[in-house]
Amino acid sequence: MVSGAAMAQSSVTVYGVADAGLVLERGGAAGNVSKVTSGIASGSRLGFKGTEDLGDGLAANFVLENGLGIDTGAAGQGGLLFGRQAWAGLSGRFGAVALGRQYSPWYKTVRDVADPFCDGLAGAITSVFAANTRVDNMVSYASPKLAGWSAELAYGAGEVAGDASANRTLGGSATYSEGPLTVVLVHHQRENPTATAHSRNTLLTARYMFANGFTGHVAHAVNRDLLGNESKDDLLGGTVRMGASKFIASVIYHQDDSAANHDARQYAVGYLYSLSKRTDLYTAYGHVNNRNGASFKIGNATDSGSGVTGVNLGMRHVF
Amino acid sequence: MVSGAAMAQSSVTVYGVADAGLVLERGGAAGNVSKVTSGIASGSRLGFKGTEDLGDGLAANFVLENGLGIDTGAAGQGGLLFGRQAWAGLSGRFGAVALGRQYSPWYKTVRDVADPFCDGLAGAITSVFAANTRVDNMVSYASPKLAGWSAELAYGAGEVAGDASANRTLGGSATYSEGPLTVVLVHHQRENPTATAHSRNTLLTARYMFANGFTGHVAHAVNRDLLGNESKDDLLGGTVRMGASKFIASVIYHQDDSAANHDARQYAVGYLYSLSKRTDLYTAYGHVNNRNGASFKIGNATDSGSGVTGVNLGMRHVF
Amino acid sequence: MVSGAAMAQSSVTVYGVADAGLVLERGGAAGNVSKVTSGIASGSRLGFKGTEDLGDGLAANFVLENGLGIDTGAAGQGGLLFGRQAWAGLSGRFGAVALGRQYSPWYKTVRDVADPFCDGLAGAITSVFAANTRVDNMVSYASPKLAGWSAELAYGAGEVAGDASANRTLGGSATYSEGPLTVVLVHHQRENPTATAHSRNTLLTARYMFANGFTGHVAHAVNRDLLGNESKDDLLGGTVRMGASKFIASVIYHQDDSAANHDARQYAVGYLYSLSKRTDLYTAYGHVNNRNGASFKIGNATDSGSGVTGVNLGMRHVF
Repeated sequence: MVSGAAMAQSSVTVYGVADAGLVLERGGAAGNVSKVTSGIASGSRLGFKGTEDLGDGLAANFVLENGLGIDTGAAGQGGLLFGRQAWAGLSGRFGAVALGRQYSPWYKTVRDVADPFCDGLAGAITSVFAANTRVDNMVSYASPKLAGWSAELAYGAGEVAGDASANRTLGGSATYSEGPLTVVLVHHQRENPTATAHSRNTLLTARYMFANGFTGHVAHAVNRDLLGNESKDDLLGGTVRMGASKFIASVIYHQDDSAANHDARQYAVGYLYSLSKRTDLYTAYGHVNNRNGASFKIGNATDSGSGVTGVNLGMRHVF
Repeated sequence: MVSGAAMAQSSVTVYGVADAGLVLERGGAAGNVSKVTSGIASGSRLGFKGTEDLGDGLAANFVLENGLGIDTGAAGQGGLLFGRQAWAGLSGRFGAVALGRQYSPWYKTVRDVADPFCDGLAGAITSVFAANTRVDNMVSYASPKLAGWSAELAYGAGEVAGDASANRTLGGSATYSEGPLTVVLVHHQRENPTATAHSRNTLLTARYMFANGFTGHVAHAVNRDLLGNESKDDLLGGTVRMGASKFIASVIYHQDDSAANHDARQYAVGYLYSLSKRTDLYTAYGHVNNRNGASFKIGNATDSGSGVTGVNLGMRHVF
Repeated sequence: MVSGAAMAQSSVTVYGVADAGLVLERGGAAGNVSKVTSGIASGSRLGFKGTEDLGDGLAANFVLENGLGIDTGAAGQGGLLFGRQAWAGLSGRFGAVALGRQYSPWYKTVRDVADPFCDGLAGAITSVFAANTRVDNMVSYASPKLAGWSAELAYGAGEVAGDASANRTLGGSATYSEGPLTVVLVHHQRENPTATAHSRNTLLTARYMFANGFTGHVAHAVNRDLLGNESKDDLLGGTVRMGASKFIASVIYHQDDSAANHDARQYAVGYLYSLSKRTDLYTAYGHVNNRNGASFKIGNATDSGSGVTGVNLGMRHVF
């Protein structure tokens, strides 16, 4: 039983993002759509988190983060209450261990290092690259940083009775980050529910922050799906900061090595203007050229989109 | 990506209403029901809101407001997480713009100006009047007040691919409010999903706060549904405040101008006693006379009811 | 209508439990399972509560408590938003009255008095004893304590139109608590949806806290289900506190008096180590011997389990 006395010492930070705007989707199969929608630059969310200092550098940590559609009031991630993140763990000099529904090392790398759009707006990297966003029943370990090097390991239990490997997820990343340079090698693989095949994604990416406000991004991914089809993804992009303004651009090439040869190229540009440290206005344009019947669409941080062209205009408020 | 540093500056107000009590419903088709229920005077809710001062009178605002059944713990509004309100916007000297799931100008007028019961208890106006409560994917603009005059405009995107007018909602209101007098003219119309017909509601209402604690309400609405059937609604009501006590009464006439001639009259009285500024006890009685097979029922702020007579007894706590 | 001014005075405490760990389930029908899961020692939760002092010892109170799976981010209790608790009420010298979704007097007794495991870990009492956890549409009254004696009454409205007794729940408890000794007699009964039969559970339990850190628990329950089948449950258990460590053990006997004779015996041991007042690590082992085809399983605070043996290892953080 949890004592009432302990409960009275509240130690929770309530935080979130309210992101709303207009999205024009052009060139979709069912026709054009204009949306008043949510989470275009960053997914709209409401979170609860806390850290308790246990002494000797040890801390207990938790995060409960809901994703929401501010356009409809519905919970995101298929209706999950804390569909973005839900975990508890311990951190200390040994690194950090956490259990729960967590971002995969793969996704944190594509969002935070590879993509100048941070997987948002009409240039979102996961419109083309594999997302592998979150893993349920996950145990993660993040090492401390040593001479610029750090590593993450992730295991997602499949929880299939009688077969411990069915539905299991494995992931890991190695990062070198020193001054303006960050390089990450990350791998993600998932067994199917009968443990007869697994998908695999491997990514090498680098980001360099130049002194003049320009940041360059480059990424190369190698993929194999459950049927054994192989493909490669490449990204080249960058951002420029000038006062309250930020310009973003990226180009993504998808090369399908299967017989279908579903290649594609995505081009995107974006512009953000900061009204404050917590609030910005944004606009972006993205277009994808699908070859040989490929069906990539321009999405954003929340929506996978319906058209080959997307235009964004909106506001993001962080609280 | 949203920076952790910005997130640490929490600036959220957590607020809500816990309203619970007894409702007796008499004269329903399936028999009488006695309920221990939620949200009788005001819908039970839990909300999160914030305002950031951006300088020069400009502010960024958001509201995420959940509706809940305190009798069962279930989310209201059909299970939506933030089914009451979810929006973000900017306000300044130009007025206020907001995007998201919002109250229609129509609903804010019937609840806040037309109805002495504020759309709660056994006298709730929307047991008879059109509710048009909330609109998804809505862009709203509220003007500043100028010499007593103000206006609101609302556009709800239909988001049907290939047809921008399908499912669309339009609304607008003009308000004159000076001293004890408030007068509002409001209009609401909604296209059906194929854009072949729309429903329309127009309302003129006035409220006058007399110096002796009496407030009078009068409202006249003209309606046309998707099939072209027309009807009118009239309300006459008032409240009297005496110390911690508040008495409420209203009479509503519904005149059905279609061949069915489904007329109805609703009578209701209520009494509230304030235990504090945030907590009150309430009781109310409402009855509706249905003519020619009309099927109006006595509801309250949350429940649409099952009987032609309703009795309420409960407590509302605002936090 | 709820005034904005009143809303601005926020008075909410945000609290919760983040409990995550590993559960090994052995001997289940579908095979062994190893889970990274949530709420093993205490159900993971996020709650909002408040109390307003109304003067003269009178207070308005509310609790909105969500249950969640930190392993998946999903809402617990079948997807309810505030599925653990949702109620509002008044307390004063007369005792406390509350309306909403509440714990039954039965459940509070088995969890807080009868079970040394507090209905958590692999020794959770409700793997065998009746749970009767929560009741919707419930009015409760808790008396003040007088010379060590107190009482609770609970009525859960069935809310079936035309039959006030259908689906109704009745409960009550009498408690004597003075110094180290607590004794409770509690009863719970529930009508079926057609009011043609009801289930009944009656429990007598005692807990004694010895001066040396040992606490002993004993409980005896008599049950009758909707079909008239009778059974008895007995528990003998205890806890020992030594500094930051706590050892727990219990034995439960289930005697089925029906023709099926589905008897069972559950054995469990646990160990908790406090990292702080708010955070502890835990491990536990439980096993149930099912006789004559009985199908009891080793569960925990959240999961009803799949096997006859359960092993737990995890962390509980109270915030």
